[in-house]
Amino acid sequence: MSKKTDDVLSTNIGEFELIRRFFCSDFPSSPDTVIAIGDDASVVKPPPNTELVQSIDTQVADVHFPATAPAHLIAQRALRCAASDLAAMGATPQGFHLALTLPESNAHWLADFSDGLKKAAHELQIALIGGDTTRGKQLVISVAVQGWLALDSNSTSQALTRSGAQAGDVIYCSGPIGAAALALPQVLHNPADISGFAQAYYFPKVHLSLGQKLQGVASSCMDISDGLLQDAGHIARASGLTLEIDPEKIQCADPQQKQQCLTGGDDYQLLFTSSNPDTIAELQQQFPAVHQIGVCKKGPTGVILTGPSSEITATSGFSHF
Amino acid sequence: MSKKTDDVLSTNIGEFELIRRFFCSDFPSSPDTVIAIGDDASVVKPPPNTELVQSIDTQVADVHFPATAPAHLIAQRALRCAASDLAAMGATPQGFHLALTLPESNAHWLADFSDGLKKAAHELQIALIGGDTTRGKQLVISVAVQGWLALDSNSTSQALTRSGAQAGDVIYCSGPIGAAALALPQVLHNPADISGFAQAYYFPKVHLSLGQKLQGVASSCMDISDGLLQDAGHIARASGLTLEIDPEKIQCADPQQKQQCLTGGDDYQLLFTSSNPDTIAELQQQFPAVHQIGVCKKGPTGVILTGPSSEITATSGFSHF
Repeated sequence: MSKKTDDVLSTNIGEFELIRRFFCSDFPSSPDTVIAIGDDASVVKPPPNTELVQSIDTQVADVHFPATAPAHLIAQRALRCAASDLAAMGATPQGFHLALTLPESNAHWLADFSDGLKKAAHELQIALIGGDTTRGKQLVISVAVQGWLALDSNSTSQALTRSGAQAGDVIYCSGPIGAAALALPQVLHNPADISGFAQAYYFPKVHLSLGQKLQGVASSCMDISDGLLQDAGHIARASGLTLEIDPEKIQCADPQQKQQCLTGGDDYQLLFTSSNPDTIAELQQQFPAVHQIGVCKKGPTGVILTGPSSEITATSGFSHF
Repeated sequence: MSKKTDDVLSTNIGEFELIRRFFCSDFPSSPDTVIAIGDDASVVKPPPNTELVQSIDTQVADVHFPATAPAHLIAQRALRCAASDLAAMGATPQGFHLALTLPESNAHWLADFSDGLKKAAHELQIALIGGDTTRGKQLVISVAVQGWLALDSNSTSQALTRSGAQAGDVIYCSGPIGAAALALPQVLHNPADISGFAQAYYFPKVHLSLGQKLQGVASSCMDISDGLLQDAGHIARASGLTLEIDPEKIQCADPQQKQQCLTGGDDYQLLFTSSNPDTIAELQQQFPAVHQIGVCKKGPTGVILTGPSSEITATSGFSHF
C-alpha cells in the first residue's frame, strides 16, 4: 500500500509485514492500475472517454457491525456496502483503497479479514490499489471505492443521479427489502450465524449489472441503505417531486413485518425511477425481482404512501444510533 | 457528501445538517468535478492524457496527534500530510474524500475543524468531493487525496517512484529536517501552542511545486514521513542500491540534536535522487533549501552513513507506537 511506518503495528507483526502477507497477493488486478501498493501513492490510467465514480464508506465496530463478528464477514460486508454506491451510479468497479484502524494486529484475525476481502473483491472484480493501516481503540474500516462510467457519444455523463426523476416516472425497487433489518436480532445474538436473513446482512447483493443496464433508462437511482421510505425521500427532494408509493406493491422479506421492512436499513437494493416502462419490462426478464412500487408526481416534495397501510410512518429511517 | 444516514450523528446536530453546514461551501472547486457532495458517489472527469494519482492517509487521535489539539490544527495537518504523497509523486491535486469518525458531533468543534480544512484545501487547491461521517469511540480521520499527472508525449508515466534510482545518482533533500520531531514535547505539553517548531508539526510544507518540477529530473522520490534514514531505506530497497548518506551534509532543524532530526518523523520533506545535477542546480535557484546529502552506489541494498557521525543509527525510524 502507499504506506508509511508511522503506523507500525508493533504487537504481533509489523505493518510492512502485515501488508505484504495479507494485502499484496491474490486480489483481482485491474488493467488500468499502473502502480498499486508499495509507493507513496497509487497510479491509475483512466480509460478514454470515461468518468471516474468514487465513494468512501466507513464502518465502525459495534456501530455498524458487531465487533465480535468473524473478520471475513466484516470484510465482505464492508466492501460490498461501499461498492453498492458504484452500482447506484451505474459504474463499473476499478479499484479500492482501504484504511484500516485496528485495536491490535492479530495475524489470525487479519488472515481471516483478508480472506473475506479477497472473496468480495473477486466477486465484484475490484482491485486493491492502496491503503493505510493504523492503530486505534476501535476497529474502523474505511473503504474508498472507484469505478468508470463511459460517456455517451455526445460526451454526456451517464451517471444515475438522485435528481433526474420527472413527474409521471414509475418508481421501481430492484428486489425484496427488509431481510438485512430483520436479521439484526440474530446478528447481534450470534454474529457468526450466517443462516437465513443474515445472508442479506453480511452479503448484500451489489447490483452492478442492473445499475449498468439502467444507464439511459432510469431517470434517477440510488441504493437503499437507510430504509426504502427514507431513501425515497432523497430522490423526492433531489428531484423536487412527490414520490407516491404503494406499500402493498413493495415486496418485503417478511410481509408480516412490513413496517420494519420499509424503514429498516442495510438492504442495498436499488431504488430507481424511469419513464420507459417497456425497457424496464425487458430488463425484468433478466432481473425478475425488479418491481414497480409507485409513481412520481408534481406536488409537495416528499414521499406519500397510498393504499390501506396508512399506519406506516414514512419519515422514519434506519439509524445506527 | 456521497452520504448515508446510517451514520446519523444524533447528539447535537444530524449528519445531513453537519455536512450542509460545515462541508458544503467555501471549499475550493475543481473544474474536473461533475458531481461532488450529495449523491451516492462523486463523479470526476479525468483530463485527457493524464494519470490519476491517489493516496489514503489515516490519523488517529492520541496516536498521530493529541486529541485535545485545536480542531483547525488537526484538520490542517491531516490534509497536508495526505497531500504530501501527491507531491512525492509529482502530481497536481484535484480533490479529496474525507472519512470522519467522531466521538461526538460538537458543532463548535466541527466549525473549527471545517475552518482549518478549508484553509489547507485553499492553499493546496484541492476540492472536497465526498466523504462519510460516522460515530466512534475515538476521533479517526481518513483523507483520500487524488491528483493528476500528465503523460509525456510518448504516453509514458511521469510518476516519481521509489524504484528508479541508479548507481551514481546524487541524493537530495528538499529542506532541513527534524523540526516536527523536535516539536513533539511542546505539542504534547501544550497542543494549542503553534510557536517555533510546532509550525513544522501542524503545517508541514507540501512540496507540490518542487515535486512537479522534478518530473523527468528526479530518478526517484518520496516524502519523508518516518525519518530520513528509514525512508532512505525504502528507496534503497525499491531501487536495489546502497544509499550512501553523509550526515554532515544533512541540514537539521537543530544541529545539536542530529540523531533526533535524522530519525524523527513527520517532516514531509522530499527525498529524491537525480543523475542530472545541472538541472537540480537550476532548480535550487527557486528552491534554495534543496541540498545534496549523498550518492547512490552499487552494493548491498540499504543505507550507509559516511563521515564521522558513526554514532547515528541508520535503522531506527520514527514509530507512533
